[in-house]
Amino acid sequence: MSADAPGTTVVDVPGSGFGRANLPYGVYSVDGGPRRVASRLGDTVLDLATVLAGRIGDAERLFATSSLNRFMAEGHDRWVEVRAALTEAVGGPVPDAALHPVDAVTLHLPVEFTDYVDFYASEHHAANLGRLFRPDNPEPLLPNWRHLPVSYHGRTATIVESGVDVVRPCGQRRGPDDPAPVFGPSTRLDIEAEMGFIVGTGNAMGTSITPDSADDHLFGAVIFNDWSARDVQAWEYVPLGPHLGKSFASSVSPWVVPMLALTDARCPVPGQDPTPLPHLRMDQPWGLDINLEIEWNGEVVSHPPYRAMYWSPAQMLAHLTSNGAATRSGDIFASGTVSGPEREQRGAFIELTWGGAEPVVVGGVERTFLLDGDIVTIRATAPGPEGDLIDFGEVTTRILPAAC
Amino acid sequence: MSADAPGTTVVDVPGSGFGRANLPYGVYSVDGGPRRVASRLGDTVLDLATVLAGRIGDAERLFATSSLNRFMAEGHDRWVEVRAALTEAVGGPVPDAALHPVDAVTLHLPVEFTDYVDFYASEHHAANLGRLFRPDNPEPLLPNWRHLPVSYHGRTATIVESGVDVVRPCGQRRGPDDPAPVFGPSTRLDIEAEMGFIVGTGNAMGTSITPDSADDHLFGAVIFNDWSARDVQAWEYVPLGPHLGKSFASSVSPWVVPMLALTDARCPVPGQDPTPLPHLRMDQPWGLDINLEIEWNGEVVSHPPYRAMYWSPAQMLAHLTSNGAATRSGDIFASGTVSGPEREQRGAFIELTWGGAEPVVVGGVERTFLLDGDIVTIRATAPGPEGDLIDFGEVTTRILPAAC
Repeated sequence: MSADAPGTTVVDVPGSGFGRANLPYGVYSVDGGPRRVASRLGDTVLDLATVLAGRIGDAERLFATSSLNRFMAEGHDRWVEVRAALTEAVGGPVPDAALHPVDAVTLHLPVEFTDYVDFYASEHHAANLGRLFRPDNPEPLLPNWRHLPVSYHGRTATIVESGVDVVRPCGQRRGPDDPAPVFGPSTRLDIEAEMGFIVGTGNAMGTSITPDSADDHLFGAVIFNDWSARDVQAWEYVPLGPHLGKSFASSVSPWVVPMLALTDARCPVPGQDPTPLPHLRMDQPWGLDINLEIEWNGEVVSHPPYRAMYWSPAQMLAHLTSNGAATRSGDIFASGTVSGPEREQRGAFIELTWGGAEPVVVGGVERTFLLDGDIVTIRATAPGPEGDLIDFGEVTTRILPAAC
Repeated sequence: MSADAPGTTVVDVPGSGFGRANLPYGVYSVDGGPRRVASRLGDTVLDLATVLAGRIGDAERLFATSSLNRFMAEGHDRWVEVRAALTEAVGGPVPDAALHPVDAVTLHLPVEFTDYVDFYASEHHAANLGRLFRPDNPEPLLPNWRHLPVSYHGRTATIVESGVDVVRPCGQRRGPDDPAPVFGPSTRLDIEAEMGFIVGTGNAMGTSITPDSADDHLFGAVIFNDWSARDVQAWEYVPLGPHLGKSFASSVSPWVVPMLALTDARCPVPGQDPTPLPHLRMDQPWGLDINLEIEWNGEVVSHPPYRAMYWSPAQMLAHLTSNGAATRSGDIFASGTVSGPEREQRGAFIELTWGGAEPVVVGGVERTFLLDGDIVTIRATAPGPEGDLIDFGEVTTRILPAAC
C-alpha cells in the first residue's frame, strides 16, 4: 500500500493476479469477529460494506453478512453495478478501515451451498477412466458421453474451504482377490482437480435455463477438489453411482472469481461431434482458458488445462435444468476432473499413476495414492485484459489419519 | 370438537389415525399469513406456539417459524420434552385460538431440506429392477447389494409438498432401436413409493453415527414419492448413476410423524445374510411395520409393505456417515421404492407393469406409465399403542403436460 490522504490508501498491485481486473468475492473475519464479505486486491483484503458505503445503496445489507448468497440473489444487473462501483472505488484511495493484510484475516467458505452437482466434462479424463475400469471395452467412452454432460449429485454439507484438513475416509471395499468386502481406511485416496461454477440466480421448478441465457445465472468460479476414495467408489458405484467414495469432503478455494472477470479467458471448446441436441446447442460454446497446477507435498506434478474440456459451463447448467429442475442462489456445479491429453496434464492421481501401476516421484520417493500427512495444493490462473493474469488463488488441504 | 370452558375446547378424535398417539409436526398458514409450526389431532390443526405457550420455555421461538429445522436442531431430549408437553396439553381443553380445521389451512413443506440421499433398500425392488434391466444376468442383485445399502444423492431444491403439481419432465433418451438420442417429454414417467426419514440432529464432519445411536438423530418420517423418468434414467445413468431422470421432483407428505410415535411400529427386518460388517451391525436391526397404499386416478393399485425392507433406517444413516460425512438438521434420506414379494405389493409402475409389458387396469383402461392429468396418491399407516393406528396422511400429486 502507498500512503495517500489521511486515513485512506491507494492499494498498489503491480503484477498481481489479484489486480483491478480480478476483484473476486470472499468471506473473512478478523480476530474471531463476525464474518463479512470482502474482495481482494494484491495482498490486501477489502471490506466491501465499508468500501462501497455511499457508492451503492445497501452495501451494509449485502456485505455485512456471512455469505455471498444475499448479494448473488440480487441478479446479474446488480453484479454488474457492484463490480463497476468497486472498480471505481479501488481506482482511488480507499478508507484504511476497509483494508486488512490477507495474512491477518481468516477466510471462510464464501457461499452457503444449496445443491451440488458434479460433472464429468473432460473427454481425456472420461476416456482414461474408461480404459482403467473397463479394459476389455475397445471404446473407452460410454455411448451417452458425447450426447450429454454426464453428472450426479453430491453432498453440500462436506464442502469445505482451503485450509480445512480432510480425514482419510473409512469405507467398505472389495478388491478383485478379496473373498468378501472389508471395512477400513481407504487405501486409494485421490484428488480430482476441477473448477466449480456458482449459480447466482436460479430458475423456478418446471422451467429451464438455455445455454445462451446461462450468463444471466452464472455468478463466479472457484477451484474445486473432489476428494475420491477410489476403492470405496469402485465397490459401491453400481448401479446408482458414486456416494461414499466422494461424500466425505470436497474442498474449494476461498475467492469466487466473478464470471465478469473471465471475459478475456473465454475460448472455444475443442469441438463437439456429434452436434449437441437443441437443448445443449449454442452458436459457439465457450470454454475457459484456465491453467491449473497441482502441487503434491511441495512438488508440482501436473498442469491440467481447462481449455481442453469438452462440455462448456453454460451447457452443463442448461443440461442440469433441462428437465425442469430448479436451481437456487448458492448452487454449485463442478466440472469433473480437468485432464489434458498429456500425462503431466492429468488432474487425478489415478490417471497420473495409471491406477497405481506407474508411480510418480514426489520428494524423491515413488508415490501413487495419498498418504496421511500429505499436503495437496491446487492453483489456477486465467488470462485477463492487457496481458494481466486473473488468479483464482489456491485450495490447500492436508490429509489426516482415518478415525476407524 | 366438543365445547368446554369458555374459549377452550377438548378436541375429540375417536378412531382417527391422527389421535393422541400420533401428534405429527407440520407447517401451516391461514389466509396467506405467516408460516407456523403445527401438530394435528383428528381433523384439527393445532398451532404449537399457542398450545405450548407457558408449557415450555421458548414455544414462540421454536414454533412461530416457517420450518421444523429450529426445533429439530434442539436435539432428542428436547423432542421428548415437547412431545410430553404436547401430550399433556391435548389431554385437556386447548385454547380455541390455537385450533383450525385442517381444511381451512394451507400446509407447506415442513422442513428446509439440506442434503437428500435416496437408498435402494428393498430386496424385492432391487431384484425386480435387476431382472428388468439385466435380463441376461442369472443373479438379479449386484454383488454389493447385500453388503451395503446402495444409495446416491438427489436434489433438495425440487422436494415439494403434497398438492404441488409435477410437470412431466423433458429429457434425453435413446430407445434400443433409436439410431441417435432424442430430446422430448418423458414417455415412461413413473412413481416410487418410499418412506423418507428426517435427520433432526446431525454429526460433525469426520465422525460417524453408529446404527445403535441413530435413535438420537432420527426425528421423524414422511411418505416420499421419488418421481422417476425411466427413459431418461436408462440412457443417462452409466457410469455415475441417476440424475435428470429423478431431479425434476420428489413429493413428500406434509406431516412429519415423530420416530417417538413409531415405537409400536418397530419390527425385525426380514433377516440379513451375510451378517453385515461391523459399521452396519446391530443387535436387532429394526424395521417399521408401515403399510403403504398407492392410488392411481382414484383406484388403489398396490399395497407396499415397509416391513419387507432389507436394510433398516438406522443402518442407512450409519452407512451414509460411515466415511465421516457430516449430516445436518434438515437432511432427509429416503428408503428407495418399497416393494413386497407379491405383484400387488410393488411400489413403482415399472415393476407393477413389468416394464410396461403387463399393463394394469385403471378406470377400465389398460395403463402402464403416467399420462398427463393423472393423479397419484400414496398413503401410509402404522400400528400405534392399544390397537390405534398412526396415520402418515398422504401425498397427492397431479401430472401436468411437459413444457418442451
